[in-house]
Amino acid sequence: MAQVKELSIESHERNQLIKLNDRVATFIAESGVKEGVCYIYVPHTTAGVIINEGADPTVASDLLETLSRLVPHQASYSHPEGNADSHIKSALVGSSATVFVRNAAPVLGTWQSIFFCEFDGPRRRKLWLKLIDG
Amino acid sequence: MAQVKELSIESHERNQLIKLNDRVATFIAESGVKEGVCYIYVPHTTAGVIINEGADPTVASDLLETLSRLVPHQASYSHPEGNADSHIKSALVGSSATVFVRNAAPVLGTWQSIFFCEFDGPRRRKLWLKLIDG
Amino acid sequence: MAQVKELSIESHERNQLIKLNDRVATFIAESGVKEGVCYIYVPHTTAGVIINEGADPTVASDLLETLSRLVPHQASYSHPEGNADSHIKSALVGSSATVFVRNAAPVLGTWQSIFFCEFDGPRRRKLWLKLIDG
Repeated sequence: MAQVKELSIESHERNQLIKLNDRVATFIAESGVKEGVCYIYVPHTTAGVIINEGADPTVASDLLETLSRLVPHQASYSHPEGNADSHIKSALVGSSATVFVRNAAPVLGTWQSIFFCEFDGPRRRKLWLKLIDG
Repeated sequence: MAQVKELSIESHERNQLIKLNDRVATFIAESGVKEGVCYIYVPHTTAGVIINEGADPTVASDLLETLSRLVPHQASYSHPEGNADSHIKSALVGSSATVFVRNAAPVLGTWQSIFFCEFDGPRRRKLWLKLIDG
Repeated sequence: MAQVKELSIESHERNQLIKLNDRVATFIAESGVKEGVCYIYVPHTTAGVIINEGADPTVASDLLETLSRLVPHQASYSHPEGNADSHIKSALVGSSATVFVRNAAPVLGTWQSIFFCEFDGPRRRKLWLKLIDG
């Protein structure tokens, strides 16, 4: 058994982490899959997905600031669209994540949240979810 | 049903991104798997795989230049083989990627390409593909 | 058929790479799964997992030193717990890895090892393994 869903995500900043836990949990609960693996996939090239601490929002802001220090918005890039940094950040954090599913729910560590990573907002984005039974 | 394949890849630069879309699509089409997940795995420690923009080649060159600025070829490394930077870049981008499969084809975002990341070329490399039905 | 296991890991340094090959191989051999995919998942937000060279320990030390140069322990972070750097390193390397399984064994490249990445030790940690048949 497998299930696929496309979520719509709206970002409000150029760089922003958006928590996905509730929407991923709802997708899994509604799918009928009890045990398996949930794939989270970002079909964009200036965004990504990470799993990290969601309790204290300073973790997200420190991450975004550090990424912007390492990969500045303005620098001597060749890409002419002004978002070379966004593509590079996307490549560094990655475009997919994997979460285990048990008892029809995502299994995360105590402090873990799933975050959509916006690096070229604000925009409307898509996120794809897929479940494999097993 | 599952399918595995080993591809051979030839790089021509020390740092180079090589587009894999056509070869991944051919593998999936020939496998007989209609719906599932395709895993792309790099069995090397100085190479990796990313999914990012493939339309404008400056995205790839900006990424490679930024990685080389952050992790220079020559620095005070302990590893004696002259490719410490290659190993570190490989760890940062990662050695595997996951793509959804629908209607016997990879499902990518509009601007997404799958890239083998060479960080210690030129060389002949391997890439492993595996499909899971579901 | 699927199998899940939780491993306990003890780190002895603030930043440390711990090789997991033997424990992953044992888990797979005992599971009864012959062909499939093994997921390695770190349920922490200041740790991660990578696959990289395990033969020469200087590769691990160069990686840890480079990460600490790019993301210093002490800097102007907002997170008040003194481990903002650990969260950022965790986001950069990622919290999961995927390995192919063939003949009831993990299939790695010649020089590849699976490493638990400790970025806020010393501590006792958990690692989750899951196998999917296919």
